[in-house]
Amino acid sequence: MPHIDLSPSLPGISAAFAYRPETAAPMRELAHVLLFESGQTTSLSSRDRELIAAYVSSLNNCYFCQQSHGAAAAHHAGGSDELVGSVCANPRTADISPKLRALLSIASRVQANAKTVTPALVEAARTEGATDLEIHDTVLIAAAFCMYNRYVDGLATMQPQDASMYAQMGEHLATKGYRASSLR
Amino acid sequence: MPHIDLSPSLPGISAAFAYRPETAAPMRELAHVLLFESGQTTSLSSRDRELIAAYVSSLNNCYFCQQSHGAAAAHHAGGSDELVGSVCANPRTADISPKLRALLSIASRVQANAKTVTPALVEAARTEGATDLEIHDTVLIAAAFCMYNRYVDGLATMQPQDASMYAQMGEHLATKGYRASSLR
Repeated sequence: MPHIDLSPSLPGISAAFAYRPETAAPMRELAHVLLFESGQTTSLSSRDRELIAAYVSSLNNCYFCQQSHGAAAAHHAGGSDELVGSVCANPRTADISPKLRALLSIASRVQANAKTVTPALVEAARTEGATDLEIHDTVLIAAAFCMYNRYVDGLATMQPQDASMYAQMGEHLATKGYRASSLR
Repeated sequence: MPHIDLSPSLPGISAAFAYRPETAAPMRELAHVLLFESGQTTSLSSRDRELIAAYVSSLNNCYFCQQSHGAAAAHHAGGSDELVGSVCANPRTADISPKLRALLSIASRVQANAKTVTPALVEAARTEGATDLEIHDTVLIAAAFCMYNRYVDGLATMQPQDASMYAQMGEHLATKGYRASSLR
């Protein structure tokens, strides 16, 4: 039961976005740039960006965000439900590039306590080919999901346990992005 | 020493914003709507919104954000450095309204673990006169500063210990807001 009067027909963050369109607009725009658009123009793909988002959401124990961004990652080229599951279970043993593994280490530090991101961790990511932009975007994706996750859970939004809903949402996010009416 | 190649002449989040204008735009817009604009049209003033931001930043131990938003709170009508200090030290004994005290309790739960915001805490805020919109905005301000704080610290941005710089920044934020070139 949500803490405030949110639409009962909208799941998760969608209900909060509908409640407050003025703040929803920049929050959608940030996700659109960071997860969708930038993944088409940089070497850190949207699949990898969504994997970082799903992984951080799993660390924050946010079911709605883990499921929806996991489904988006699975829908992108090279993605699958199995890959998402293995990354969230343990990035060290998941079938991903050493670069993404190093970036996920940084993301987990940002989630827990951002002051614990060390020069050594950043250097390790660089050694695996990560650019400054990719390190920046990893830090910001992890930070941003510490916001989105808290927004979803802090309002006690409704988080359905319906795999087909998340699959449909993931397809939409992976193909259309996050601007207005991308999330339903 | 920042983890990536940020401008050495810009403090805190300003350097990260200058590095990545595409993500800075929605991040500035969110702060502008949530802290500045909404404080002029709702009963939760910009001073109170900035106090929530400074308090959450203090809980996250983010010096730059605590100082800059504390300075903004101090510059707004009814604000002072003493008030900011007492709120960050202990909201229960600070000279603030019962409504703001109840909202700060919700904010501290969002910061620590958003799932621990209880119906009882929300009800307590309502009893003190908080509206759904004010509860929503409190949750989102607390969540958003869990992002901004991690962005500032996760990149190891430069955080000067210069009180006059923060005072100047606070005045600017309190009078102009957060859109482009508001932060220097």
